[in-house]
Amino acid sequence: MANGDQHRSKCCFLEWMKLQERDLSELLQALTLTPQNDAELTKLAQKGVEHFESYISQRSTLSKNDVAAFFSPAWCTAWENSLLWIAGCRPSAYIRLIYALSGADVELRLADFLRGGAASGGDNLGGLSTGQVRAVDELQRRTIREEDRLTTRVAGLQEDVADEPITAIVKGVEQIGELSGEIERALDEHEKAMAVALEDADKLRLNTVKEIFGILTPVQGVDFLAMSKKLHLCVHEWGKKRDQRHGRENC
Amino acid sequence: MANGDQHRSKCCFLEWMKLQERDLSELLQALTLTPQNDAELTKLAQKGVEHFESYISQRSTLSKNDVAAFFSPAWCTAWENSLLWIAGCRPSAYIRLIYALSGADVELRLADFLRGGAASGGDNLGGLSTGQVRAVDELQRRTIREEDRLTTRVAGLQEDVADEPITAIVKGVEQIGELSGEIERALDEHEKAMAVALEDADKLRLNTVKEIFGILTPVQGVDFLAMSKKLHLCVHEWGKKRDQRHGRENC
Repeated sequence: MANGDQHRSKCCFLEWMKLQERDLSELLQALTLTPQNDAELTKLAQKGVEHFESYISQRSTLSKNDVAAFFSPAWCTAWENSLLWIAGCRPSAYIRLIYALSGADVELRLADFLRGGAASGGDNLGGLSTGQVRAVDELQRRTIREEDRLTTRVAGLQEDVADEPITAIVKGVEQIGELSGEIERALDEHEKAMAVALEDADKLRLNTVKEIFGILTPVQGVDFLAMSKKLHLCVHEWGKKRDQRHGRENC
Repeated sequence: MANGDQHRSKCCFLEWMKLQERDLSELLQALTLTPQNDAELTKLAQKGVEHFESYISQRSTLSKNDVAAFFSPAWCTAWENSLLWIAGCRPSAYIRLIYALSGADVELRLADFLRGGAASGGDNLGGLSTGQVRAVDELQRRTIREEDRLTTRVAGLQEDVADEPITAIVKGVEQIGELSGEIERALDEHEKAMAVALEDADKLRLNTVKEIFGILTPVQGVDFLAMSKKLHLCVHEWGKKRDQRHGRENC
């Protein structure tokens, strides 16, 4: 039932957002406990990765039927869509988030210290060690390189529309928009290549998160995961409010 | 009336598509006349540029109110949106189109010749002179450089969401999605920067077309303009049919 493609993709996203909300509560809860249990925190981070993996695997299946829907999803808000890079967030944004959080933590600790309080512990993201900063920097460089490679691939696919075989078909078309087996095949081929690009972008997003967990301590990892989920949920909700302001309906 | 932003932007696009249809008929008509009148053809190409300029100027005004809507427009089809680069087509795609058309013309003339007919004249895009090919190549390199510069700027803006001041606000937020004056100001600033990027991308699209007309002869220019409009109209109509297949409603 072709009609169901869009509906299924939307449900997949909405379920993912609900799951992120539940996971966020659990993560924030775990961060308040003292003393913190590294094994428990590692398990939570691992669960986060598994949930992401399962979401990505569902997207991969769904996008094979209707990849275009994922590039400007009707189930997201206009603001969210203006932030998209190959149907999702930029993997390098995860790293920007680590830098932002560690900077914010350093500022908080400094303020504590200047107020005469004891500087709080170095467990959260402000406490990145020199080795960690170096590893994050290296990951950032590698991630941006991979991002650029995929950006170039998708740019090529987008330009292909102005090239053979599509141009030759357009040249021969008598009636604007008339469809033939030839054009259907060309568009199917194009969508297939876009679906592969989306899958590779998702893999890069997942691998970046996995590598981040390899660098951070368990508590830092959970702190990062919680903030990335909180940011995503906030962007979605803020986008909804801005859509309402412009008279757009939300999912 | 905020509610009208989306409606006005959609109308602006639909009127542009209708105008392109009318212009296309006129361009195709002009190409059938013999002998061809260079002054008339130049006037037609000039009219095409003026129409594009006026469309871009309307987009610039509209996007200042609601830029996000232009990055994944609800008035376009999902397939069209998957081809977008900064709320429009890639300027380098115009150049790919010239190459594709000139290649196709060379093939047509060769086929004519092999069938024993006289090779048709060198006035259309297959007849690019060595100097023209060199100028198009040079324009392509420059356009891709400019495209890359703008791609990097927008990537930076997209990543900014995972950075200050937004991250600090997210960190302090108690309730997901709660809005404050602070976040409204941060989002307004972000949208303003996106609107400037859109305006610069539109300028690059327009300048690329203008430079193309500076390289091509009047008949080649009209041939190019006609094909670029036919391609755009076909992509929109094919996108509609594919949307219908997936149960999506069209504008």
